[in-house]
Amino acid sequence: VTTDGFGLANLPYGVYSIADGPRRVCTRLGDVVVDLATLLDDEVFAEPTLNAFMAQGYERWVAVRSQLQSMLAIDLPAEAANALDQCVLHLPFEVADYVDFYASEHHASNLGRLFRPDNPDPLQPNWKHLPVGYHGRSASIVVSGTEIVRPCGQRLVAAQDGPQFGPSLRLDIEAEMGFVVGTGNTRGDRLPVVDAHTHLFGAVVFNDWSARDIQAWEYVPLGPNLGKSFASTISPWVVPMLALAEARFPIPTQNPTPLSYLDSENAWGLDVDMAIEWNGYVVSRPPYRDMYWSPAQMLAHLTVNGAPMRTGDLFASGTVSGAAKETRGAFIELTWGGAEPVSVGAETRTFLEDGDEIVISASAPGVNGERIAFGEATGRILPARPIT
Amino acid sequence: VTTDGFGLANLPYGVYSIADGPRRVCTRLGDVVVDLATLLDDEVFAEPTLNAFMAQGYERWVAVRSQLQSMLAIDLPAEAANALDQCVLHLPFEVADYVDFYASEHHASNLGRLFRPDNPDPLQPNWKHLPVGYHGRSASIVVSGTEIVRPCGQRLVAAQDGPQFGPSLRLDIEAEMGFVVGTGNTRGDRLPVVDAHTHLFGAVVFNDWSARDIQAWEYVPLGPNLGKSFASTISPWVVPMLALAEARFPIPTQNPTPLSYLDSENAWGLDVDMAIEWNGYVVSRPPYRDMYWSPAQMLAHLTVNGAPMRTGDLFASGTVSGAAKETRGAFIELTWGGAEPVSVGAETRTFLEDGDEIVISASAPGVNGERIAFGEATGRILPARPIT
Repeated sequence: VTTDGFGLANLPYGVYSIADGPRRVCTRLGDVVVDLATLLDDEVFAEPTLNAFMAQGYERWVAVRSQLQSMLAIDLPAEAANALDQCVLHLPFEVADYVDFYASEHHASNLGRLFRPDNPDPLQPNWKHLPVGYHGRSASIVVSGTEIVRPCGQRLVAAQDGPQFGPSLRLDIEAEMGFVVGTGNTRGDRLPVVDAHTHLFGAVVFNDWSARDIQAWEYVPLGPNLGKSFASTISPWVVPMLALAEARFPIPTQNPTPLSYLDSENAWGLDVDMAIEWNGYVVSRPPYRDMYWSPAQMLAHLTVNGAPMRTGDLFASGTVSGAAKETRGAFIELTWGGAEPVSVGAETRTFLEDGDEIVISASAPGVNGERIAFGEATGRILPARPIT
Repeated sequence: VTTDGFGLANLPYGVYSIADGPRRVCTRLGDVVVDLATLLDDEVFAEPTLNAFMAQGYERWVAVRSQLQSMLAIDLPAEAANALDQCVLHLPFEVADYVDFYASEHHASNLGRLFRPDNPDPLQPNWKHLPVGYHGRSASIVVSGTEIVRPCGQRLVAAQDGPQFGPSLRLDIEAEMGFVVGTGNTRGDRLPVVDAHTHLFGAVVFNDWSARDIQAWEYVPLGPNLGKSFASTISPWVVPMLALAEARFPIPTQNPTPLSYLDSENAWGLDVDMAIEWNGYVVSRPPYRDMYWSPAQMLAHLTVNGAPMRTGDLFASGTVSGAAKETRGAFIELTWGGAEPVSVGAETRTFLEDGDEIVISASAPGVNGERIAFGEATGRILPARPIT
């Protein structure tokens, strides 16, 4: 870990402990973990998650960030400082509801070509009209570094034999960005695109581990379930949306123009660079800035029927894939369904093997020419549990 | 409300308050709400939800039920007794993750015939191999009596015009049973069918309100989202699975025999009668006992990939539909996609109109010839919020 990307332009929020001590809210400056309850003398940061602080709302987020930047520009009191390598980093917030979107046109088109090769249009008819998404399992969200047990489940090995039970043979990743809701809406109300920045607290790097064989068999007609529900990994640092004001970037032209509640004019994307390392080798650099649908549009869409959002809701972008092969964010795309293995150092891979480790990282421009790091979403694959 | 169905064979759990007073755990005997913290002198029942009690586990559930039955057979101390009509009933537990299944063969076949009329097999290839299900929005689960605002969203009115935004024109119900997880599993572990009864705390009546037009446009390929996420209603009483031992009923023969983890031999169904009232008129009597997949199989399936279940997880059965028209559990089936209106008193209906009220109720056999009532899941439709 270097100090790069964790300067005063960033100041992400996390939750740490010293060994098995109490969990407390922190920020990070370089390689120092700063205890916020100590620094700011405020018990909301002595909580084991960010939720209580997030629930205080936008004006409070602005005030705390401003206070932190002023204080830390001058001095970091020793009693609030812990060396990063002495700290355990935990899941930074309690996840309320979790939704995964599908917002990359390149990703959706690639999967359309792979799964429906005879269809002249790789996109479904609804894709350019709304950000397609589905709910996933909140309990399965884990913090970076958590080991991932290879899931078992039903999958078709040869269609004529019917489904068989066993370890997933096509274990994959999806490199995504996740967005954390700080404050929600009352049931029945809608959150417009122009207000999204006052409800979105921050962003994380997200790996939506995916068992493609389990998913392919189960997902018609109600969508993914067991193929995704075993685990998704987030980075331990929640980068404040306030830190990402500098990284706002126009979304691609949306044609046809979506319905007015999706407000293309006022939606904003993010100029985020991502990288995927497979056993230490970079295999892809997905460009978040190319994403078709914006996080503000996702939030507006999620609430347009009056559905309630809450503090701690998490929604992820879906796989981030660019136009070029070496920018695809899932191995099913990068290897074209397993037909085109990729080099991982001296070896080749199609899907994940036991012992493989994936590190997804991201960074964005911040104020004063600083770079903002999101940290990493890391996970290593453990063998499947024995079948009894 | 009558005293029928709330005798010593039932003793469901709920959460009540007197006006705006503190929420506390209760049971119900006839038309009396019994305060359990007072009766049993145990602070776990002074909590505002059932979660802390549920987390104590199966042996504790057995012990408390036994103690309640012994005590209440003899005497109900006045200081623990409140008249039902003086009590406000609340959402009885904090919902962790929520999953909705699709476990009625009649329902899945009817929808297949309606949506894919050219397909010779109305069931998808996976349907008889696994209980198909998807995750929904936990924050949208509301207690019986909560009014339901008609959702707005994107829907195709005439395909050539593209999607339009507006209030749902095909607002529907799904009459289901819901199952509450009392204790879960560690991530990576599996819960076998034979152990399900020690993890399932209880059952509720469930109404999965559904905007069919929004759902039809959005659901390919990732499943339902906005068409369902605005609200689902549960009954205020959680009937203990321990009370339903008498109601166990064989599931229909499963052919082909599912994979061994789904353990058809040891799975059990429930002999539950349901009824749907539309503005006071019974329009359907769905038979839960005909459901193809068992709750124990649903729990085994949800965890077979190692996904973690938690205290407060809720999974619902999917629409309960029998073979006969007058036993179908959703109006899209009952009216065959709106083509065959049903009589509701002197009026006719296809889908829900503003002001309509739906009451779903259920009952099952209990010990000593007693009938066990589940109470009601009730909701009235309010007009859509103005579009700004």
